[in-house]
Amino acid sequence: MRVVVPYAVDQPKTRLSAVLSPAERIAFSEAMCRDVLDAIRQVGETPELLATAPVEFGDDAGPTGDTSDPHATPVTVDDRPLTTAVNGVFEETLTATADDPRTATANETAHESATDRREGADAVAVVMADLALATPESLERLFGAESEVVAVPGRGGGTNALVVRHPDFRVDYHGASIRDHRRIAREVGAEYAEVDSMRLATDVDEPADLAELLLHGEGRATDWLRDAGFEVDVTDGRVGVTRS
Amino acid sequence: MRVVVPYAVDQPKTRLSAVLSPAERIAFSEAMCRDVLDAIRQVGETPELLATAPVEFGDDAGPTGDTSDPHATPVTVDDRPLTTAVNGVFEETLTATADDPRTATANETAHESATDRREGADAVAVVMADLALATPESLERLFGAESEVVAVPGRGGGTNALVVRHPDFRVDYHGASIRDHRRIAREVGAEYAEVDSMRLATDVDEPADLAELLLHGEGRATDWLRDAGFEVDVTDGRVGVTRS
Repeated sequence: MRVVVPYAVDQPKTRLSAVLSPAERIAFSEAMCRDVLDAIRQVGETPELLATAPVEFGDDAGPTGDTSDPHATPVTVDDRPLTTAVNGVFEETLTATADDPRTATANETAHESATDRREGADAVAVVMADLALATPESLERLFGAESEVVAVPGRGGGTNALVVRHPDFRVDYHGASIRDHRRIAREVGAEYAEVDSMRLATDVDEPADLAELLLHGEGRATDWLRDAGFEVDVTDGRVGVTRS
Repeated sequence: MRVVVPYAVDQPKTRLSAVLSPAERIAFSEAMCRDVLDAIRQVGETPELLATAPVEFGDDAGPTGDTSDPHATPVTVDDRPLTTAVNGVFEETLTATADDPRTATANETAHESATDRREGADAVAVVMADLALATPESLERLFGAESEVVAVPGRGGGTNALVVRHPDFRVDYHGASIRDHRRIAREVGAEYAEVDSMRLATDVDEPADLAELLLHGEGRATDWLRDAGFEVDVTDGRVGVTRS
């Protein structure tokens, strides 16, 4: 399985600008991305970055980036919009299988055909870089699901992670993308399933999401937030964050 | 397993008052609660309501309540605060086991003791009535988890569902309760686990939560919202709801 982590190098996390400076948003984004890469490696997969600009992440690199790490994460630079760049990866990886010469017999049913394609094809996983609550357990549920298209809905209608084994499936990340991905899977005739995970549903975009990290996180990004003075705040029964 | 669904009869869902009238909030709460009861029944458990005032829910009752249904959900009325009422259920149900005469041998380890208690004791599940995205699959993961205390974190630090098999565990629903429940489990020496489910993490409290129902729901509450004119609205990349 090819596991791709899209990563926006410039001006990440603008919706956190009320609580974090531009430099802090870059450092925090990097900490989240490293947590995601770590969790992917812990289930035995090898992540690669699909970045909007050159970036170097080592396996055990510190916050400033230790570029001498021989296990540094491979990076593909693609400055096109996210949807285009991810679809480029699908085309590059999954098309070879679609082009395989294949002789359908009269007895081949739609089900058999789907099973053949699934078992014969490479798979591409796309895991967003801001899933700082991702754990090996939650990723195993995603990577272990067997449908031709497996999606993880994010809060607010997004699609936080995908595993794609069907050569004709394409993403469209605009708007409430989970609805579009259900439709696209149906249109190309792909078996479709969703993984029900709060951890993978939590993409960290807004100040309220920081509370989720402080409540449930254990990685670099949570440490970074605590070091920056953030803590959970409960006022009038609502849970948010304060910064000291 | 005893499966208890706490239900606030009067003035439910005040945080939805910007988008729903008082009468609508009552009807919508009832639809959500019925969805939860249905999902619990679909996994073979028998739910009971722990209500703040008398209420009658039939198995297949319509929106106005068909009280002639012989399979109507049992109701216990307890007008005390939620925490007190739920702890009352634990005391009533799990204490008997703790009082069982039990002869610990010199070889009995802490682990064996915990296992004995788990297998011998009744279990109490507490499932909130506003988990309108609950499915049989998500509830099976909760009911099938084997720890002495199994918790489902809700968005914002709440505790949306619990299975309790330890006689000394008590709830405290105030504030970021999932942190308190982790602490209480540790203090009473209970094995503790969490279930990672976006569906069960989504308690429907605020207008933004309605979008989750419209995107992922299939039950009475989602139908109710659609009938009331709500639909998903995507503006500037943010997903919310509008009402026609």
